[in-house]
Amino acid sequence: MSSQSNNTTLKILQDIVKIIVDENVLEPPENHPVVEFLQPEGLKNELSVDLGEDGTSHDELDKVLRQIARYSVKTSHPNFHNQLYGGVDSYGLAGAWLTEALNSSQYTFEVAPVFTLLECEVLRVALALFGYPKHPEGDGILCPGGSIANMYGMVLARYKRLPEVKTKGLSGSPPLACFTSQAAHYSIKKGAHWLGLGTESVYQIKTDDKDRMLPGELKKAIEQARKDGRLPFFVNATVGTTVLGAIDPLNEIAEICKAENVWLHVDACLGGTLVLSGERRDRLIGVEMSDSVSWNPHKLLGAPLQCSLFLVKGEGSLHKANSAAANYLFQQDKFYDVSWDTGDKSVQCGRKVDALKLWLMWKAKGTNGLRRAVDHAVAAARYFQNQIATRRGFRLVIPEAECSSVCFWYIPPSMRGLEETDEWREKLYKVAPKIKERMVMDGSLMLGYTPLSHKGLGNFFRMVVTCSPEAKESSMNFVIQQIEKFGHDL
Amino acid sequence: MSSQSNNTTLKILQDIVKIIVDENVLEPPENHPVVEFLQPEGLKNELSVDLGEDGTSHDELDKVLRQIARYSVKTSHPNFHNQLYGGVDSYGLAGAWLTEALNSSQYTFEVAPVFTLLECEVLRVALALFGYPKHPEGDGILCPGGSIANMYGMVLARYKRLPEVKTKGLSGSPPLACFTSQAAHYSIKKGAHWLGLGTESVYQIKTDDKDRMLPGELKKAIEQARKDGRLPFFVNATVGTTVLGAIDPLNEIAEICKAENVWLHVDACLGGTLVLSGERRDRLIGVEMSDSVSWNPHKLLGAPLQCSLFLVKGEGSLHKANSAAANYLFQQDKFYDVSWDTGDKSVQCGRKVDALKLWLMWKAKGTNGLRRAVDHAVAAARYFQNQIATRRGFRLVIPEAECSSVCFWYIPPSMRGLEETDEWREKLYKVAPKIKERMVMDGSLMLGYTPLSHKGLGNFFRMVVTCSPEAKESSMNFVIQQIEKFGHDL
Repeated sequence: MSSQSNNTTLKILQDIVKIIVDENVLEPPENHPVVEFLQPEGLKNELSVDLGEDGTSHDELDKVLRQIARYSVKTSHPNFHNQLYGGVDSYGLAGAWLTEALNSSQYTFEVAPVFTLLECEVLRVALALFGYPKHPEGDGILCPGGSIANMYGMVLARYKRLPEVKTKGLSGSPPLACFTSQAAHYSIKKGAHWLGLGTESVYQIKTDDKDRMLPGELKKAIEQARKDGRLPFFVNATVGTTVLGAIDPLNEIAEICKAENVWLHVDACLGGTLVLSGERRDRLIGVEMSDSVSWNPHKLLGAPLQCSLFLVKGEGSLHKANSAAANYLFQQDKFYDVSWDTGDKSVQCGRKVDALKLWLMWKAKGTNGLRRAVDHAVAAARYFQNQIATRRGFRLVIPEAECSSVCFWYIPPSMRGLEETDEWREKLYKVAPKIKERMVMDGSLMLGYTPLSHKGLGNFFRMVVTCSPEAKESSMNFVIQQIEKFGHDL
Repeated sequence: MSSQSNNTTLKILQDIVKIIVDENVLEPPENHPVVEFLQPEGLKNELSVDLGEDGTSHDELDKVLRQIARYSVKTSHPNFHNQLYGGVDSYGLAGAWLTEALNSSQYTFEVAPVFTLLECEVLRVALALFGYPKHPEGDGILCPGGSIANMYGMVLARYKRLPEVKTKGLSGSPPLACFTSQAAHYSIKKGAHWLGLGTESVYQIKTDDKDRMLPGELKKAIEQARKDGRLPFFVNATVGTTVLGAIDPLNEIAEICKAENVWLHVDACLGGTLVLSGERRDRLIGVEMSDSVSWNPHKLLGAPLQCSLFLVKGEGSLHKANSAAANYLFQQDKFYDVSWDTGDKSVQCGRKVDALKLWLMWKAKGTNGLRRAVDHAVAAARYFQNQIATRRGFRLVIPEAECSSVCFWYIPPSMRGLEETDEWREKLYKVAPKIKERMVMDGSLMLGYTPLSHKGLGNFFRMVVTCSPEAKESSMNFVIQQIEKFGHDL
């Protein structure tokens, strides 16, 4: 440790920057691989991952770090479309680096004075964009990912309906009921498990042909839950479902929740970024009627992972629900206004600073700059959708995507023009995994596939367009070419 | 966005590195301030935090980033002793930067092949250090902070005792009971709230004069809980309490848990780092008998925030408890062995990569290097404790610290030699906050203070020594000098 003088620290960091540049981590050229895939055991043999008693020489360390960069997936590659994130924003990354260097926790103003202000500012603009009231009537917190953000919604809804559960627990309470669409994210189920509601408390509401929750079905399910002896307390509407990017009808759902006196949470982890869109902001009309909302700028918007916001209405609602008032951390006899300490609003104690990276992207580009990027991504997804719609051998799962994910099948030449029997379909559903395998082994392109079981649909591709790197027609076309290349003989 | 060519990205990152160097973020000289404190409103006036429609010019951005660095607390400063973290390890930071640049999620091998292996390796060495069985009998996961790690323990304990709660919820179950010491972290209470157990399910066990849980009291409390109609299912023992750094008697607690058939979780978030100590490893004897353990290398060891491990016994226990089997992410028809996909073990979906930073520290220094650093920190804390014990006007709260936190009062000259009445004590308890305020306004030193209510003790200082930067006698002595300087007239 004693060798870590200032110069050594700087040297270590400069070496890392050099490796990142040399290995094309940040903006790999299109003709470089997205991934050099090795099977787990092969990768283990290639990399010197073992940790042991002795340290490692500088040269060895340099070698293994280059291998780490080399064999990691290049999520910033223009041909990475595999997840709902990808393509880290440069300013976001700079903010992440500065955050890491300043290494602090977000819990008190005392140790995070600037980060506290930046989090407030990020929450301020987010509240405004979603049509929520200003602080203190509107409040929020940055938290580690969308699943936990959704759990915040469930906990606050429960606390509002049954505040005594905080002290007494659920044991003596009536069984509760949550409602979410069949297309919604599994975090609602995981949340129901963790929070002691049980996964059977989750009523999965049927969806329409675009995979949007059917409000009539929601109404029926709430009635059914009451018949089942359960207390309905929480509806989750989704803005941007994981697979098709569907947006639930917020206005109608909000009306039902109001009439039924049920908390409305909106999981806008994916589609929340459309609040920044000029063209598609209208899809989110009604979100302002909800009680809480989750939004992950680390998805479509390109903020570095993790960047997840939870927003809520009701002055002090986060604090009241989550406070434990630990007096070694949240001393009330401090020399500043301790209402600036955010830690007791959180289920966490130490909390990673995630505000600076989003704040810096926003500061650098302005809302206008972010809006242009979002609209560009939406337009690029539309371009891709149009190509798929008209290209022989390709078939869209739904005619029009609401977010920037485009789902489609590729039908190889040998399967075209045949009767579409169950057998034919079984064969079709094996096409995407096979092409995917070939793609990854080739390393030129990464694109996900998935079934959609509740609609009885087997594997299809899900093409994801994000804000960064800026999507080009050439990279859209490349996806189609590569699928044809790897799939024409199937 | 289109202006972000490769060179621009690199330029942005190089600018950030320059700011970090210029503003002495990483290894500030001793005579530089730890903090330039401004009250919230003053800081708001000083900083241009506002986000608006338009972007910001390069020069303006440079200016505000320098201000962010300037007004942030320098947690790597040798005189920062304010929290249980501080002093980020250089290799850890390099690993964090590379992680951010590679921007991926830890959920599948497909998008995180290298990170998956690194997490496995970090878990492998951690399991071995804690005396846990190897994978698959031993398992673990990196998670966002110790509070959530402790919640993992509670959820797994509940699942083992009442697996049907996952589907049915707690509504029909008997009320449960958790046990933890009065000195334990508040995350157990927050966990009891979130998980639907209720904070009243937490029995807070009395502690001895060193703030260690009294096993006899634990036994009595378990009996009492049964009389109260509750089902005891979870005991949390602490290795390194937040304030005094106390270590609960693990062997005796483990025996009780075994006899009572109750899950033993060990919150070793702070003190777990002592498994790396040559001198103090023996304090953790018995931890190998526990069912699960939490350990935060981001505390004493100096890994960048967040770095938190949850370890557990029982093949597949994490997966069985937490799985939701989402088929769009964890497809079973992939081209590699999907048992490498870690995502369904987690309560999260996207999961930040926290393994590389710890792995890189370990790889660079080896277990031996980490051990030396831990033993040095322990020795430095002992040096400080000895100074306090013999210095006129200072008084230790307990004679000997088990971790590396040293708690003490400063008695100003005007209060010495007087009868220690209630009034005298009331006055003493106002000394630390006052000195703290003066310290922070001066900016030369940051040191926390806290009461210990369950022992009837008012405010005292808590001096924290961590592994990085390497603690020097001069900086230990400086703490004493500054307290005398700011407190002599009180």
